Amino acid sequence: MDNYKVTFEPEGRRTLVKKGETILEATKRVGVGIRSECGGQGICGKCKVALTDKKSVSELTDTERKLLTSEEAASNFRLACQAKILDSLTVYVPLESRMRIRRIQIDGIEREVKLAPQIRKITVTVPAPSLSDIRSDSDRLLDSLKKPGLGNLSIEYDILRNLPEILRKAQWNIAVTVWNNQKVIAVEPADAANKLYGVAIDIGTSKIVGQLIDLTTGRTLAVESIENPQMIFGEDIITRINHAILHPKGLRDLQATVIEGLNKVTLGACKNAKIRPEHVYEMTVAGNTAMHHLFLGIQPKYMALAPFTPVTKRAINVSAKEINLRINPCANIYVLPIIAGFVGGDNVADVLSTRIHKTDEISLLLDIGTNTELTLGNKDGLISCSCASGPAFEGGHIKHGMKAVTGAIERVKINTDTLNIEYETIENTKPVGICGSGLVDIIAELLRYSLLSKTGRLNPEAAIDKFREKDGLMELTLVQKKDSGTGEDIVITQKDVRELQLAKAAIYTGCAILMKRKGIKIENIKKVYIAGAFGNYLNLENAKTIGLLPDVPSERVAFVGNAAISGARLTLISRKERIEAEQISKTVQYLELGTDLDFEKEFISSIKFP
Amino acid sequence: MDNYKVTFEPEGRRTLVKKGETILEATKRVGVGIRSECGGQGICGKCKVALTDKKSVSELTDTERKLLTSEEAASNFRLACQAKILDSLTVYVPLESRMRIRRIQIDGIEREVKLAPQIRKITVTVPAPSLSDIRSDSDRLLDSLKKPGLGNLSIEYDILRNLPEILRKAQWNIAVTVWNNQKVIAVEPADAANKLYGVAIDIGTSKIVGQLIDLTTGRTLAVESIENPQMIFGEDIITRINHAILHPKGLRDLQATVIEGLNKVTLGACKNAKIRPEHVYEMTVAGNTAMHHLFLGIQPKYMALAPFTPVTKRAINVSAKEINLRINPCANIYVLPIIAGFVGGDNVADVLSTRIHKTDEISLLLDIGTNTELTLGNKDGLISCSCASGPAFEGGHIKHGMKAVTGAIERVKINTDTLNIEYETIENTKPVGICGSGLVDIIAELLRYSLLSKTGRLNPEAAIDKFREKDGLMELTLVQKKDSGTGEDIVITQKDVRELQLAKAAIYTGCAILMKRKGIKIENIKKVYIAGAFGNYLNLENAKTIGLLPDVPSERVAFVGNAAISGARLTLISRKERIEAEQISKTVQYLELGTDLDFEKEFISSIKFP
Repeated sequence: MDNYKVTFEPEGRRTLVKKGETILEATKRVGVGIRSECGGQGICGKCKVALTDKKSVSELTDTERKLLTSEEAASNFRLACQAKILDSLTVYVPLESRMRIRRIQIDGIEREVKLAPQIRKITVTVPAPSLSDIRSDSDRLLDSLKKPGLGNLSIEYDILRNLPEILRKAQWNIAVTVWNNQKVIAVEPADAANKLYGVAIDIGTSKIVGQLIDLTTGRTLAVESIENPQMIFGEDIITRINHAILHPKGLRDLQATVIEGLNKVTLGACKNAKIRPEHVYEMTVAGNTAMHHLFLGIQPKYMALAPFTPVTKRAINVSAKEINLRINPCANIYVLPIIAGFVGGDNVADVLSTRIHKTDEISLLLDIGTNTELTLGNKDGLISCSCASGPAFEGGHIKHGMKAVTGAIERVKINTDTLNIEYETIENTKPVGICGSGLVDIIAELLRYSLLSKTGRLNPEAAIDKFREKDGLMELTLVQKKDSGTGEDIVITQKDVRELQLAKAAIYTGCAILMKRKGIKIENIKKVYIAGAFGNYLNLENAKTIGLLPDVPSERVAFVGNAAISGARLTLISRKERIEAEQISKTVQYLELGTDLDFEKEFISSIKFP
Repeated sequence: MDNYKVTFEPEGRRTLVKKGETILEATKRVGVGIRSECGGQGICGKCKVALTDKKSVSELTDTERKLLTSEEAASNFRLACQAKILDSLTVYVPLESRMRIRRIQIDGIEREVKLAPQIRKITVTVPAPSLSDIRSDSDRLLDSLKKPGLGNLSIEYDILRNLPEILRKAQWNIAVTVWNNQKVIAVEPADAANKLYGVAIDIGTSKIVGQLIDLTTGRTLAVESIENPQMIFGEDIITRINHAILHPKGLRDLQATVIEGLNKVTLGACKNAKIRPEHVYEMTVAGNTAMHHLFLGIQPKYMALAPFTPVTKRAINVSAKEINLRINPCANIYVLPIIAGFVGGDNVADVLSTRIHKTDEISLLLDIGTNTELTLGNKDGLISCSCASGPAFEGGHIKHGMKAVTGAIERVKINTDTLNIEYETIENTKPVGICGSGLVDIIAELLRYSLLSKTGRLNPEAAIDKFREKDGLMELTLVQKKDSGTGEDIVITQKDVRELQLAKAAIYTGCAILMKRKGIKIENIKKVYIAGAFGNYLNLENAKTIGLLPDVPSERVAFVGNAAISGARLTLISRKERIEAEQISKTVQYLELGTDLDFEKEFISSIKFP
């Protein structure tokens, strides 16, 4: 077997590869983060790399001819997922092809609830055995725990194994961790009495966030977040589900990968807070339905096919050891219930943390992403739906679109006098592309200055010098080559505008149909909650200008950030909130837009700008 | 590292060993079963082997000088546990040092109970999902199971993982296995509807017996039994417990070994009955307290030290996958509860199968072994104790004693005319030693012909030619060298008689004290049950003659064989019996003889023969 050496620049990282492996595969091995929104299927064209020597790799494929400009091809640019390695070589990974620091929304709104977790620690002194007291170790322990409020306790089998040694080493002074007043899940010397921790987790498609909570005080001790390591199997949900379906070990790999991610987050948080992971006795996990299934290793195939059936909607309790989470092995993992195939545990957590299921006033909750989940109503009933808003807000299907990572244009204004475009980038570096909030801004500004018509046509007549036609497509230059971080112009094209129109129309249609079903008019909506990272950087007026959000007074709109982690935290610190989460999962009505008779009409009429 | 070749004759089995390993360690590696009652501690002297070359092993130890005759030492006999290998060599393992086919009691009494197992299979047709029926797979399954008698069912997490594929492959016609009307533990295509099996297991210190039961009919389909493979860690309980205490991985090894044994028994039974192991959905396990703890991997240390505290007395339910049993992974393993440190789940099963806890008449139940467990009483209350009867009935501490395996003398008579000794051996081979039932016979016969006094002194005057004195100890020859399988005389010594006296006195004392505590006279005992293999080969009259059993009319005595497996079977086929087993564990009173004030007086007065 031939082994070739591949060097990745500018880091100079090296790895050995086998003949025929793609450059993308090699990047994974060496830990060079490279964009591959389509999971290496030759669709997104984001994994461009430059080679020192075109002879060391396989010939240009048809896919590459389609996705690379002739200039790029001539400069030895290739798609990492297409080019197969035939000899040792050096690969240059340009800035715009890299995964970079992403803005992760780790804070949610904090709602005060009474601290009443599912687990508690009880200190007892157990009488030592004697010839006149021959009770078994477990009976003498359980007899000592006969206290008001503690029912018919049992001891986890795993704990029995070493129980006699622990009791005697602790000289019968014991701290007992009890779950749900039912089960003894840990027995330790009494000096561990105050060490009672839990972790709340939000598994997003692209990020994992964890909060480490002291369950004796309710205080958050540490927050950790990472990119969801399942990214290496594809950036979007459908690519990952396909991986689970098509590869015999695919589901297992996806599960193991996300669990490794949770371990990283949890152990990182424990390290920061200087606590021992075995003192974490419970974890609560919120995620969309796909993340929920993949985390639990449950086959997600039929969720991706009509009629989009999830395997289970209920909350699930599993022990840490069952799924290899490296906290206390008998710790309980509570996985929040879901509402439907496209409305997951993250939405249950959103509802729980905003309490829209408890208020008199009518609220609308939006969680904007590739799928945007909408929930509308009040304490008398909530209805939810999911709109296929597409990846435009995350930079997908947009010529120079990108996620909200370093170098992304996140705010745009058009100068009233010069009509010049002014922008800000994340981390204030040279711009390399445009992210969702920037895109909303530029479209709104173009509308404002009539550079774009209500029907969505770019209007070059209004400022002829800003526009040009390329490959038969009108485009507007946002950043000139000399100012950009990529060495190329950053533009917005007519096609990009159309993508955004489809995205905002999908969301608007969802809102319109939910309102119609509930018989609610726009003026009755007293509160609009926008969850998710995208919301936080969004210019509200611009979002209303383009018709992404319904036209409600700005003071009624609240950005709630990562409401999913807030909800997960609530279920960790309060048993009552956990029961509410289950109620939400059971009672929120789900509307399948695909089967709604008004959908097409509404959608078409929503494409125009307001 | 030097590797030496060791060949075991007469089989010619070979293995490589490292310098300094003992011959006993080498036999374990190559699967040559060798006696080692003390677990290789240099106490029992049973592991004698003959070498071709004395220079290939370490020098004779003090232990060997004590346990080998000078003749044996001169003929290159060594103890396998003492001799360390220093070079390649050939080892001859003589017949009397081998573990051989043992009589295993695999049948118990069969008591008819109504078939009502903890598990059942239900066939349902589940409606397929559609856009107008978007329930999750698990909800649609559970909704189909809403039937009278089935409560609030949940689905085991492990089953969820593959649930969608199974439902669709089976085209929604499903056989569901439900445990305890609570949990769905298996989901299969409807054609598996009638395949519902269980296994009842008795883990004895020296044997494992399993019965495979069809739980749709209650019929026993196959019975399998093997030596308990933990034998390689020592034949008696205390040696094994010491192994668990002294070696870091000792407990884990002991657990893994007995579980491998259960797998062997179970898979063997499945193979014989031509059923698939995944169709075994429940197992019930009875064992003494040490076997119970070792099987569950629970630390047994404090059971072996005063006040002999077990870790748990309660019944335990674990899933097959948790302890690596190779039946259906979600199968429930029900481990019978115990009564006390020395009165285990096997005794609970004994009581259950004899029903002495349900009768008006007073019964006495004996399970004779190294520890003999006694239970006395009726439906108004039972009391139990354990007597340290010692290993004499299993051949231990008896000069030519052996277990009831091939070549053991199991029956003895003295010819009225010639006073010659007549005997029968197991498998009718040449005699190599004497087992428990033979020992009882010879003692009774010696008493009958006044060759032994009531105080236990051999009486050479009565037949001077049968006796001889050796090393200051009187002995009687049972088999002459020319007739024996070992090439040596088989004898019974004055010391052997004393051992038997201690053993029978321990049991008799236990009976006497239980009777005193309950205020029961011997004539009130209407039934005596003798459980265990030993009982079956015992001559009842002889047992009464020597005072091993109380003097009750023979028609009141019943040999119930392996009552433990019968009890395990009852808990498998009937939920009601399982509840009774738990009642027995809770209500049978345990008397610790060690703390009884009458013990010493009773014991001394029981040493004499009646």
